Amino acid sequence: MVETLMGTARSAFQQYAELALQDRKNLLYAIADELEAQRATVVGQAMAETNLTEVRLNGELSRTIFQLKSYGDAAASGEWLDASIDTADPQRTPPKPKLHKTSVPVGPVLVFGASNFPFAYSTAGGDTASALAAGCVVIVKAHPAHVQTSVLVANAIGKALDKQGLPQGIFQHVTTDDRPTVNSIITHKHLKAIGFTGSFFGGKAIWELANSRPEPIPVFAEMSSINPVFIFPKKMEAESEQLANTLAASITLGAGQFCTNPGLIIVQNGAGVDHFLEILGQKTGATAPVNMLHQGIADHFNANRNLVLAQANVELVAENNDGQTLHDIPTIAKTTGKAFLQNPNLATEVFGSFSLVVVCENAAEMLDIATGMQGQLTSTLMVMEEEMNAHRALVQEIIAHCGRVVFNGVPTGVEVCKAMQHGGPWPSTTAAYSTSVGADAIKRFARPVSYQNFPNALLPLELQDENPLGIYRTVNNVLTKAPLA
Amino acid sequence: MVETLMGTARSAFQQYAELALQDRKNLLYAIADELEAQRATVVGQAMAETNLTEVRLNGELSRTIFQLKSYGDAAASGEWLDASIDTADPQRTPPKPKLHKTSVPVGPVLVFGASNFPFAYSTAGGDTASALAAGCVVIVKAHPAHVQTSVLVANAIGKALDKQGLPQGIFQHVTTDDRPTVNSIITHKHLKAIGFTGSFFGGKAIWELANSRPEPIPVFAEMSSINPVFIFPKKMEAESEQLANTLAASITLGAGQFCTNPGLIIVQNGAGVDHFLEILGQKTGATAPVNMLHQGIADHFNANRNLVLAQANVELVAENNDGQTLHDIPTIAKTTGKAFLQNPNLATEVFGSFSLVVVCENAAEMLDIATGMQGQLTSTLMVMEEEMNAHRALVQEIIAHCGRVVFNGVPTGVEVCKAMQHGGPWPSTTAAYSTSVGADAIKRFARPVSYQNFPNALLPLELQDENPLGIYRTVNNVLTKAPLA
Repeated sequence: MVETLMGTARSAFQQYAELALQDRKNLLYAIADELEAQRATVVGQAMAETNLTEVRLNGELSRTIFQLKSYGDAAASGEWLDASIDTADPQRTPPKPKLHKTSVPVGPVLVFGASNFPFAYSTAGGDTASALAAGCVVIVKAHPAHVQTSVLVANAIGKALDKQGLPQGIFQHVTTDDRPTVNSIITHKHLKAIGFTGSFFGGKAIWELANSRPEPIPVFAEMSSINPVFIFPKKMEAESEQLANTLAASITLGAGQFCTNPGLIIVQNGAGVDHFLEILGQKTGATAPVNMLHQGIADHFNANRNLVLAQANVELVAENNDGQTLHDIPTIAKTTGKAFLQNPNLATEVFGSFSLVVVCENAAEMLDIATGMQGQLTSTLMVMEEEMNAHRALVQEIIAHCGRVVFNGVPTGVEVCKAMQHGGPWPSTTAAYSTSVGADAIKRFARPVSYQNFPNALLPLELQDENPLGIYRTVNNVLTKAPLA
Repeated sequence: MVETLMGTARSAFQQYAELALQDRKNLLYAIADELEAQRATVVGQAMAETNLTEVRLNGELSRTIFQLKSYGDAAASGEWLDASIDTADPQRTPPKPKLHKTSVPVGPVLVFGASNFPFAYSTAGGDTASALAAGCVVIVKAHPAHVQTSVLVANAIGKALDKQGLPQGIFQHVTTDDRPTVNSIITHKHLKAIGFTGSFFGGKAIWELANSRPEPIPVFAEMSSINPVFIFPKKMEAESEQLANTLAASITLGAGQFCTNPGLIIVQNGAGVDHFLEILGQKTGATAPVNMLHQGIADHFNANRNLVLAQANVELVAENNDGQTLHDIPTIAKTTGKAFLQNPNLATEVFGSFSLVVVCENAAEMLDIATGMQGQLTSTLMVMEEEMNAHRALVQEIIAHCGRVVFNGVPTGVEVCKAMQHGGPWPSTTAAYSTSVGADAIKRFARPVSYQNFPNALLPLELQDENPLGIYRTVNNVLTKAPLA
């Protein structure tokens, strides 16, 4: 079965990789249109499988449709190719050849569906859309928590391929959970990259297996993040109540089931801290528990919540526990900076509506925590502008450990746009140099190739003298849209 | 010793990362000037240590000086930052925040000197120059084959740092060959990336160790390439003698001690092949053996040459063996397409003046070889323009397995320019998405970071509204130099 799957992927890739950028865009738009046409059906199925609300799922499907179109637009623009040209210098000793560089799709890509985003990070989600935009063919491994939703979305993609007159092999769908079968896809020689969104242990296992291949391949895994929020002293003094309200809403949003959920809040002991903790506890504790995505997620939430609460010097501030095992338990706990620095268990990701407030004795302790922080998708500064210069080293350390730094806002909410960086140092991802959201996500599935001394007509369109795509190119170190003379 | 080294690197990084782009350029130019001032001394030392000629070493030093300046120019231009801005949309539901993205240096970088390029890929070579350009501090591990040359170059860098008023910790030099010590640098938590040029086994061991860290870090290792040359039938028929002359010169250049040496020539049986082999053998066999870099390299050359020659269905075409153990042995061997497809030993890299000609029975065999080819730094097409369309699948496969494809030229000679791609799929490198030569090499040592909702004055210069650096930025998906209104 895997041989057939990969053989199909390979021959579809040979055809799809040659497709014009505009045709890739057309495919992505066709998938988006197909999903829109089937909105009621796919949302209904996802409601049945995931415990997510109709409002949330409709919003997520709209986001998914927007993503497909925006990666289509980005693909067609050709800017992501980073096309560059250095012209020849036959007079030089030795003569300088002409060189053209662009990006080529790497080959078949395996995408793992995510449990918490049945649309936006699953079957037709960001990884699939950006791989198709790059010119790669895709094999999706459905997440077991919403297989039937995945089947419906896969069928919609199949229909879009049909309508575009493209082979079905461009997108293939796998529903098995048989580990050896999945592993034999990961290790198959035709596979050239992997996209994953999920747990640290899942991502790391895939990354290790991919690295053990005779030809290791890149794994773009988004895995684990506790998204620290640093509240600076003057900000705390001035706005403790507002900060508590803002953060409580972010912590409990969607039962906390977001990779950007703020699971750690670092404050410095001083004016406002007691009031902040009081209000944060009140608001969070007053949030009604809701069904989590599935029992496995709820069990993990509970286990990790209990692990953190059981540590020495951890105090429960507030919780709302209604005893229903599928429900989350909105929770605030607190500890000291000293305890946090000594006990790595306190940095455990509790995936759900939980946040640990770390109360530091002084600025030095806060700096030590920032310095020792593991890699994060996001970090947040709650700060008065005039405080920034006095804490230059702290700000530098915070930025050194994350992919996105938020100024007086909340980390939840991940814009799909060019300037978005969704990816940070290990263990938040396996690939800190790339993003899984925004136009640059396409670059994960293409690699640069130089063409030396090629005749103009044999070059890819984006490199030809006339600049037929009308894109910006770096010509002799200068960005320009001008054709070559 | 390693704790002190890494502590020094870390504190120097905190200072250096804040330096203006123009000041990084000034440092790179100062190092270039220092090397120019000490040219006679460092070239003399390298002659004593490496068996390379004065002409070659002077050329290589000039290239190194050019690289330092060109990475300085590229750093100062700011284009490599890929600065992008998406403006806010407060009217949207939910409101869209403003996002700014740029690249930040990753931290201290370890660079391993290469045996075959004492200047250009060693102490002040491409990895060091591009890491400094990115804002990283560098620790160089000297190659044991030219330690004293490395010391002289390191001192020149130290002098340049002094002249620029910068801390010595920005560049540190390590000469030890004690494996545990080197390993403890690789695994030190402050280290954030590694550059390596050398053997497959060396590169792979470093990559594995770096991946075994609690926080794995990227290893940019250039390791192994046999740089296949595909000669298409009509080209062979028309130009067999010229092809033989051109390739013989490339195969024996510098005793074949280049990563881009053409070690494999794939031809299709037919008109011109016998004459090609005859001339290629004559010219290569008439090339005088010369001293190789050091005895270890000569021993490896011999061992791998003998390994290939000892395989079934391999025939010696010509050699020039003068029996001196430090000399290379210019060699041409030949085999059949069928034998090559069945025996992976025939794809062994013989680092030196050796090339294996594979004579295929037909076009299908040539395609099979291209399809099964391991990743390469370069592949070369010797082809008539009018032949290209008839061999579309073959050309596609060739490109799929290399970083640079050469049209009717030789792969030796690696231009330092933006459109150069020096890096291909495994095992030619560990990082096919990056290049170790040309301005894009800087990107290996920086990662993207997004700033959400930051006040203008607190953003890095390249992201501020006024565009103080005057660079191109992607603003709401459009490349522009215009300041923000």
